[in-house]
Amino acid sequence: HHIPYTPHQYSASEILERSERFYSLMNHRRSVRFISPEPVPREVINNVIRTAGTAPSGAHTEPWTFVVVSDADVKHKIREIVEEEEEINYKQRMGDKWVHDLKRLRTNWVKEYLDIAPYLILIFKQIYGVHPNDKKKTHYYNEISVSIACGILLAALQVSDF
Amino acid sequence: HHIPYTPHQYSASEILERSERFYSLMNHRRSVRFISPEPVPREVINNVIRTAGTAPSGAHTEPWTFVVVSDADVKHKIREIVEEEEEINYKQRMGDKWVHDLKRLRTNWVKEYLDIAPYLILIFKQIYGVHPNDKKKTHYYNEISVSIACGILLAALQVSDF
Ligand SMILES: Cc1cc2nc3c(=O)[nH]c(=O)nc-3n(C[C@H](O)[C@H](O)[C@H](O)COP(=O)(O)O)c2cc1C
Ligand SMILES: Cc1cc2nc3c(=O)[nH]c(=O)nc-3n(C[C@H](O)[C@H](O)[C@H](O)COP(=O)(O)O)c2cc1C
Repeated sequence: HHIPYTPHQYSASEILERSERFYSLMNHRRSVRFISPEPVPREVINNVIRTAGTAPSGAHTEPWTFVVVSDADVKHKIREIVEEEEEINYKQRMGDKWVHDLKRLRTNWVKEYLDIAPYLILIFKQIYGVHPNDKKKTHYYNEISVSIACGILLAALQVSDF
Repeated sequence: HHIPYTPHQYSASEILERSERFYSLMNHRRSVRFISPEPVPREVINNVIRTAGTAPSGAHTEPWTFVVVSDADVKHKIREIVEEEEEINYKQRMGDKWVHDLKRLRTNWVKEYLDIAPYLILIFKQIYGVHPNDKKKTHYYNEISVSIACGILLAALQVSDF
């Protein structure tokens, strides 16, 4: 489905004002480690993921998979896996320098919010794809492309009001 | 300068509507290879870069540098360097498979728009930083962090009206 490019429509002063307002909005985004259990309309989650999927990608490969989890048991299993890996990160894998560099963020491997948040959005990069004839499809710049999509997802969440 | 987190303010139906509107806006972004020479207020460019700089980053390292170029000679020198490298990409470096995979995008190594656009925004990842005492500062996940910032920059451009 081809969506044509629409040329712009605002005056210079409107563009300036829009760019200022969006800066101010995004400047209030924060990485939070305490998350409200308040329900969120599922349709909003779908919209922010669809928005992330509008991201550019190397050779238009769209090398991303978004998985939404709301089931309490699955969320808890994810928490257990993540905490186990993170504990290894803090205690041995990443080393003393990493632990020291992270100190002022006061983070650790306990991630209660993975149980509490009504939805988890898991983001996977597809390091390659598969053609209909089963041949491997190269996903150029897959990590860059997925990360750009994450940036757009964060913008969508912030605009929507999280 | 610490900016505290502001909790949200919209009703469920407003959130839903905002998420839909932002999806529609972002869905009209396109990678274009023909760019208008029309002037753009420099202040808008500053705002979109400041917005990109609000991105999250591994251990809060902010491993990015944004360079804005408007001088015609510098733009032209950049075009020459990019075209030379891209010609090598198409003719030998990336290989036949890459050239084949890109065919349907109808792109090539000629990038006239690098002369024509009023501003170029060059984005650099800092693969490491330097502490005041000259020691190396590790930039964890620098490519991911810069790419997230690019996603937010694209959103800022699209919101502003490009
Ligand atoms: C990491 C990355 C590298 C890209 N490299 C090029 C490139 O070298 N030349 C080009 O014309 N477009 C490039 N693109 C743009 C993609 O071709 C474009 O995003 C894709 O075709 C989807 O189109 P859209 O951005 O209009 O949605 C690149 C995009 C990304 C994310
Ligand atoms: C690639 C990447 C990895 C991150 N890893 C973690 C993490 O493991 N734990 C955590 O609590 N925060 C993590 N963060 C969040 C950063 O610590 C946070 O973005 C940074 O401190 C800046 O704060 P802000 O997002 O509120 O602006 C990560 C961010 C990025 C971009």
